[in-house]
Amino acid sequence: MELTPEEIRLFVERPFAFVERTGIRAIELHPRHIKLGMPLKGNENHIGIMYAGALFTLAEVPGGALYLTTFDTSRYYPIVKEMNIRFRRPAATDITVELSISENRVKAIQKEAAENGKAEYTLETELKDTEGTVVALGKGVYQLRPMAEINEPAR
Amino acid sequence: MELTPEEIRLFVERPFAFVERTGIRAIELHPRHIKLGMPLKGNENHIGIMYAGALFTLAEVPGGALYLTTFDTSRYYPIVKEMNIRFRRPAATDITVELSISENRVKAIQKEAAENGKAEYTLETELKDTEGTVVALGKGVYQLRPMAEINEPAR
Repeated sequence: MELTPEEIRLFVERPFAFVERTGIRAIELHPRHIKLGMPLKGNENHIGIMYAGALFTLAEVPGGALYLTTFDTSRYYPIVKEMNIRFRRPAATDITVELSISENRVKAIQKEAAENGKAEYTLETELKDTEGTVVALGKGVYQLRPMAEINEPAR
Repeated sequence: MELTPEEIRLFVERPFAFVERTGIRAIELHPRHIKLGMPLKGNENHIGIMYAGALFTLAEVPGGALYLTTFDTSRYYPIVKEMNIRFRRPAATDITVELSISENRVKAIQKEAAENGKAEYTLETELKDTEGTVVALGKGVYQLRPMAEINEPAR
Protein backbone atom coordinates (compact mmCIF):
# COMPACT_ATOMS: atom_id res chain seq x y z
CA MET A 1 0.00 0.00 0.00
CA GLU A 2 1.47 3.33 -1.09
CA LEU A 3 0.87 6.37 1.07
CA THR A 4 -0.18 9.53 -0.75
CA PRO A 5 1.91 12.70 -0.21
CA GLU A 6 -0.99 14.19 1.77
CA GLU A 7 -1.19 11.10 4.00
CA ILE A 8 2.55 11.34 4.64
CA ARG A 9 2.30 15.05 5.45
CA LEU A 10 -0.52 14.40 7.93
CA PHE A 11 1.42 11.58 9.53
CA VAL A 12 4.49 13.81 9.94
CA GLU A 13 2.67 16.90 11.23
CA ARG A 14 -0.13 15.23 13.17
CA PRO A 15 0.73 11.61 13.93
CA PHE A 16 -0.58 11.92 17.52
CA ALA A 17 -1.26 14.68 20.06
CA PHE A 18 2.24 15.15 21.49
CA VAL A 19 3.84 15.94 18.13
CA GLU A 20 0.82 17.86 16.83
CA ARG A 21 0.98 20.15 19.88
CA THR A 22 4.48 21.32 18.87
CA GLY A 23 3.16 22.79 15.61
CA ILE A 24 5.83 20.93 13.62
CA ARG A 25 5.41 21.39 9.87
CA ALA A 26 6.63 19.56 6.80
CA ILE A 27 8.57 21.84 4.46
CA GLU A 28 9.99 19.17 2.12
CA LEU A 29 8.97 15.53 2.07
CA HIS A 30 10.81 13.89 -0.79
CA PRO A 31 12.23 10.42 -1.23
CA ARG A 32 15.59 10.48 0.56
CA HIS A 33 15.24 14.10 1.68
CA ILE A 34 13.23 15.69 4.48
CA LYS A 35 13.00 19.25 5.75
CA LEU A 36 10.86 20.10 8.75
CA GLY A 37 10.28 23.23 10.80
CA MET A 38 9.13 23.98 14.34
CA PRO A 39 7.82 27.33 15.56
CA LEU A 40 9.37 28.88 18.65
CA LYS A 41 5.89 29.99 19.73
CA GLY A 42 4.37 27.45 22.09
CA ASN A 43 7.69 25.63 22.51
CA GLU A 44 9.58 28.16 24.64
CA ASN A 45 11.18 27.35 27.96
CA HIS A 46 11.22 29.64 31.01
CA ILE A 47 13.84 31.92 29.44
CA GLY A 48 12.09 32.23 26.09
CA ILE A 49 14.25 29.94 23.93
CA MET A 50 13.08 26.64 22.46
CA TYR A 51 12.83 23.94 25.13
CA ALA A 52 15.23 20.98 24.95
CA GLY A 53 12.31 18.55 24.65
CA ALA A 54 10.92 20.44 21.65
CA LEU A 55 14.34 20.36 19.97
CA PHE A 56 14.52 16.64 20.73
CA THR A 57 11.15 16.13 19.05
CA LEU A 58 12.30 18.10 16.00
CA ALA A 59 15.40 15.89 15.84
CA GLU A 60 13.38 12.69 16.27
CA VAL A 61 10.51 13.14 13.80
CA PRO A 62 12.65 13.33 10.61
CA GLY A 63 13.70 9.68 11.03
CA GLY A 64 10.08 8.60 10.80
CA ALA A 65 9.36 11.02 7.95
CA LEU A 66 12.34 9.68 6.01
CA TYR A 67 11.08 6.15 6.55
CA LEU A 68 7.66 7.10 5.14
CA THR A 69 8.99 8.79 1.98
CA THR A 70 11.92 6.47 1.31
CA PHE A 71 11.68 2.95 2.69
CA ASP A 72 9.37 0.14 1.60
CA THR A 73 6.59 0.74 4.14
CA SER A 74 4.74 -2.40 3.03
CA ARG A 75 7.67 -4.64 4.04
CA TYR A 76 9.63 -2.90 6.82
CA TYR A 77 9.05 -0.77 9.91
CA PRO A 78 11.56 1.22 12.01
CA ILE A 79 12.05 1.54 15.75
CA VAL A 80 14.17 4.17 17.47
CA LYS A 81 16.69 2.62 19.85
CA GLU A 82 18.64 5.62 21.05
CA MET A 83 18.77 9.37 20.54
CA ASN A 84 21.50 11.80 21.44
CA ILE A 85 21.15 15.53 21.23
CA ARG A 86 23.84 18.13 21.83
CA PHE A 87 22.69 21.63 22.58
CA ARG A 88 25.17 24.09 21.10
CA ARG A 89 23.52 27.51 20.97
CA PRO A 90 20.31 29.04 22.33
CA ALA A 91 17.43 28.34 19.92
CA ALA A 92 15.85 31.78 19.86
CA THR A 93 13.92 31.59 16.56
CA ASP A 94 11.82 29.07 14.66
CA ILE A 95 14.04 26.05 13.95
CA THR A 96 14.45 23.81 10.89
CA VAL A 97 16.02 20.42 10.36
CA GLU A 98 17.04 18.57 7.20
CA LEU A 99 17.83 14.92 6.72
CA SER A 100 19.08 13.11 3.62
CA ILE A 101 20.13 9.58 2.78
CA SER A 102 21.60 7.99 -0.35
CA GLU A 103 19.74 5.45 -2.44
CA ASN A 104 22.55 2.93 -1.98
CA ARG A 105 22.37 3.21 1.79
CA VAL A 106 18.58 2.66 1.77
CA LYS A 107 19.04 -0.44 -0.39
CA ALA A 108 21.76 -1.79 1.88
CA ILE A 109 19.68 -1.24 5.05
CA GLN A 110 16.62 -2.95 3.54
CA LYS A 111 18.72 -5.84 2.23
CA GLU A 112 20.27 -6.38 5.66
CA ALA A 113 16.85 -6.24 7.36
CA ALA A 114 15.45 -8.81 4.90
CA GLU A 115 18.43 -11.16 5.36
CA ASN A 116 19.12 -10.76 9.09
CA GLY A 117 15.69 -9.88 10.47
CA LYS A 118 16.94 -6.43 11.45
CA ALA A 119 19.31 -3.67 10.37
CA GLU A 120 20.68 -0.92 12.57
CA TYR A 121 21.30 2.51 11.09
CA THR A 122 22.26 5.94 12.39
CA LEU A 123 20.85 9.24 11.20
CA GLU A 124 22.45 12.57 12.09
CA THR A 125 20.70 15.90 11.94
CA GLU A 126 21.59 19.56 12.37
CA LEU A 127 18.97 21.88 13.81
CA LYS A 128 19.34 25.44 12.58
CA ASP A 129 17.87 28.80 13.47
CA THR A 130 16.71 31.34 10.89
CA GLU A 131 20.28 32.72 10.65
CA GLY A 132 21.59 29.28 9.69
CA THR A 133 23.33 28.78 13.03
CA VAL A 134 23.42 25.17 14.20
CA VAL A 135 21.67 25.23 17.59
CA ALA A 136 21.63 21.47 18.20
CA LEU A 137 22.98 18.22 16.76
CA GLY A 138 20.87 15.08 16.77
CA LYS A 139 22.04 11.51 16.37
CA GLY A 140 19.46 8.74 16.27
CA VAL A 141 20.09 5.03 16.25
CA TYR A 142 17.29 3.17 14.50
CA GLN A 143 16.53 -0.41 13.65
CA LEU A 144 14.66 -1.47 10.51
CA ARG A 145 12.71 -4.70 10.84
CA PRO A 146 10.72 -6.75 8.36
CA MET A 147 6.97 -6.90 8.92
CA ALA A 148 5.87 -10.20 10.41
CA GLU A 149 4.87 -12.71 7.75
CA ILE A 150 1.20 -13.68 7.75
CA ASN A 151 1.39 -17.44 8.09
CA GLU A 152 -2.04 -18.15 9.43
CA PRO A 153 -4.41 -20.01 7.13
CA ALA A 154 -7.13 -17.87 5.55
CA ARG A 155 -10.38 -18.00 7.47
CA MET B 1 16.21 33.93 47.90
CA GLU B 2 14.87 30.57 49.00
CA LEU B 3 12.12 28.97 46.95
CA THR B 4 9.21 27.51 48.90
CA PRO B 5 8.30 23.83 48.31
CA GLU B 6 5.14 24.97 46.53
CA GLU B 7 7.11 27.29 44.24
CA ILE B 8 9.47 24.42 43.40
CA ARG B 9 6.56 22.08 42.69
CA LEU B 10 4.95 24.62 40.36
CA PHE B 11 8.24 25.19 38.58
CA VAL B 12 8.72 21.45 38.05
CA GLU B 13 5.16 20.68 36.94
CA ARG B 14 4.31 23.89 35.12
CA PRO B 15 7.49 25.76 34.23
CA PHE B 16 6.16 26.58 30.72
CA ALA B 17 3.56 25.25 28.30
CA PHE B 18 5.54 22.42 26.68
CA VAL B 19 6.25 20.64 29.97
CA GLU B 20 2.86 21.48 31.49
CA ARG B 21 1.13 19.85 28.48
CA THR B 22 2.76 16.50 29.32
CA GLY B 23 0.96 16.34 32.69
CA ILE B 24 4.26 15.64 34.48
CA ARG B 25 3.86 15.54 38.26
CA ALA B 26 6.20 15.86 41.20
CA ILE B 27 6.01 12.83 43.50
CA GLU B 28 9.04 13.58 45.69
CA LEU B 29 10.99 16.84 45.71
CA HIS B 30 13.61 16.55 48.41
CA PRO B 31 17.12 17.91 48.71
CA ARG B 32 19.29 15.48 46.72
CA HIS B 33 16.36 13.27 45.71
CA ILE B 34 13.67 13.68 43.06
CA LYS B 35 10.87 11.42 41.89
CA LEU B 36 8.61 12.46 39.03
CA GLY B 37 5.82 10.78 37.09
CA MET B 38 4.28 11.18 33.65
CA PRO B 39 0.88 9.85 32.59
CA LEU B 40 0.66 7.73 29.46
CA LYS B 41 -2.59 9.51 28.60
CA GLY B 42 -1.95 12.42 26.26
CA ASN B 43 1.65 11.28 25.62
CA GLU B 44 0.98 8.21 23.46
CA ASN B 45 2.48 7.70 20.01
CA HIS B 46 0.68 6.15 17.03
CA ILE B 47 0.91 2.65 18.50
CA GLY B 48 -0.32 3.63 21.97
CA ILE B 49 2.94 3.61 23.94
CA MET B 50 4.61 6.68 25.40
CA TYR B 51 6.23 8.79 22.66
CA ALA B 52 10.05 9.08 22.64
CA GLY B 53 9.82 12.87 23.05
CA ALA B 54 7.65 12.50 26.16
CA LEU B 55 10.16 10.05 27.65
CA PHE B 56 12.94 12.49 26.78
CA THR B 57 11.08 15.25 28.65
CA LEU B 58 10.62 12.98 31.67
CA ALA B 59 14.37 12.26 31.60
CA GLU B 60 15.26 15.94 31.21
CA VAL B 61 13.11 17.64 33.85
CA PRO B 62 14.63 15.88 36.92
CA GLY B 63 17.96 17.64 36.34
CA GLY B 64 16.27 21.00 36.75
CA ALA B 65 14.19 19.79 39.69
CA LEU B 66 17.31 18.50 41.44
CA TYR B 67 18.97 21.86 40.89
CA LEU B 68 16.01 23.64 42.51
CA THR B 69 15.89 21.44 45.63
CA THR B 70 19.61 20.91 46.08
CA PHE B 71 21.91 23.54 44.62
CA ASP B 72 22.42 27.12 45.77
CA THR B 73 19.94 28.76 43.40
CA SER B 74 20.99 32.25 44.55
CA ARG B 75 24.57 31.71 43.31
CA TYR B 76 24.50 29.17 40.47
CA TYR B 77 22.39 28.18 37.47
CA PRO B 78 22.56 25.05 35.28
CA ILE B 79 22.45 24.56 31.52
CA VAL B 80 21.91 21.26 29.75
CA LYS B 81 24.63 20.56 27.20
CA GLU B 82 23.74 17.11 25.97
CA MET B 83 21.14 14.43 26.56
CA ASN B 84 21.22 10.79 25.57
CA ILE B 85 18.27 8.47 25.89
CA ARG B 86 18.22 4.75 25.22
CA PHE B 87 14.83 3.18 24.60
CA ARG B 88 14.86 -0.33 26.02
CA ARG B 89 11.26 -1.51 26.31
CA PRO B 90 7.87 -0.21 25.16
CA ALA B 91 6.52 2.31 27.70
CA ALA B 92 2.94 1.07 27.95
CA THR B 93 1.95 2.52 31.35
CA ASP B 94 2.43 5.74 33.31
CA ILE B 95 6.19 6.19 33.82
CA THR B 96 8.27 7.37 36.79
CA VAL B 97 11.83 8.55 37.15
CA GLU B 98 14.05 9.01 40.21
CA LEU B 99 17.26 10.95 40.55
CA SER B 100 19.60 11.22 43.53
CA ILE B 101 22.92 12.88 44.21
CA SER B 102 25.28 12.82 47.20
CA GLU B 103 25.94 15.87 49.35
CA ASN B 104 29.67 15.58 48.66
CA ARG B 105 29.13 15.62 44.92
CA VAL B 106 26.94 18.73 45.14
CA LYS B 107 29.62 20.49 47.19
CA ALA B 108 32.32 19.49 44.73
CA ILE B 109 30.31 20.71 41.71
CA GLN B 110 29.53 24.05 43.34
CA LYS B 111 33.15 24.49 44.46
CA GLU B 112 34.41 23.84 40.94
CA ALA B 113 31.85 26.26 39.44
CA ALA B 114 32.91 28.96 41.90
CA GLU B 115 36.62 28.43 41.22
CA ASN B 116 36.59 27.75 37.47
CA GLY B 117 33.53 29.68 36.31
CA LYS B 118 31.82 26.42 35.33
CA ALA B 119 31.50 22.78 36.35
CA GLU B 120 30.35 19.94 34.14
CA TYR B 121 28.37 17.10 35.69
CA THR B 122 26.49 14.08 34.41
CA LEU B 123 23.19 12.79 35.77
CA GLU B 124 21.85 9.36 34.86
CA THR B 125 18.22 8.31 35.20
CA GLU B 126 16.17 5.17 34.80
CA LEU B 127 12.61 5.50 33.57
CA LYS B 128 10.35 2.75 34.88
CA ASP B 129 6.85 1.53 34.15
CA THR B 130 4.37 0.53 36.85
CA GLU B 131 5.83 -3.01 36.92
CA GLY B 132 9.27 -1.60 37.71
CA THR B 133 10.65 -2.44 34.26
CA VAL B 134 13.26 0.01 33.00
CA VAL B 135 11.83 1.32 29.73
CA ALA B 136 14.48 3.95 29.03
CA LEU B 137 17.85 5.18 30.31
CA GLY B 138 18.66 8.87 30.34
CA LYS B 139 22.08 10.48 30.59
CA GLY B 140 22.30 14.25 30.77
CA VAL B 141 25.43 16.37 30.67
CA TYR B 142 24.95 19.63 32.53
CA GLN B 143 27.06 22.62 33.33
CA LEU B 144 26.71 24.62 36.53
CA ARG B 145 27.69 28.27 36.24
CA PRO B 146 27.95 31.06 38.77
CA MET B 147 25.45 33.88 38.40
CA ALA B 148 26.99 36.98 36.86
CA GLU B 149 28.22 39.41 39.48
CA ILE B 150 26.34 42.69 39.58
CA ASN B 151 29.16 45.16 39.09
CA GLU B 152 27.19 48.10 37.83
CA PRO B 153 26.90 51.06 40.18
CA ALA B 154 23.50 51.41 41.85
CA ARG B 155 21.23 53.85 40.07
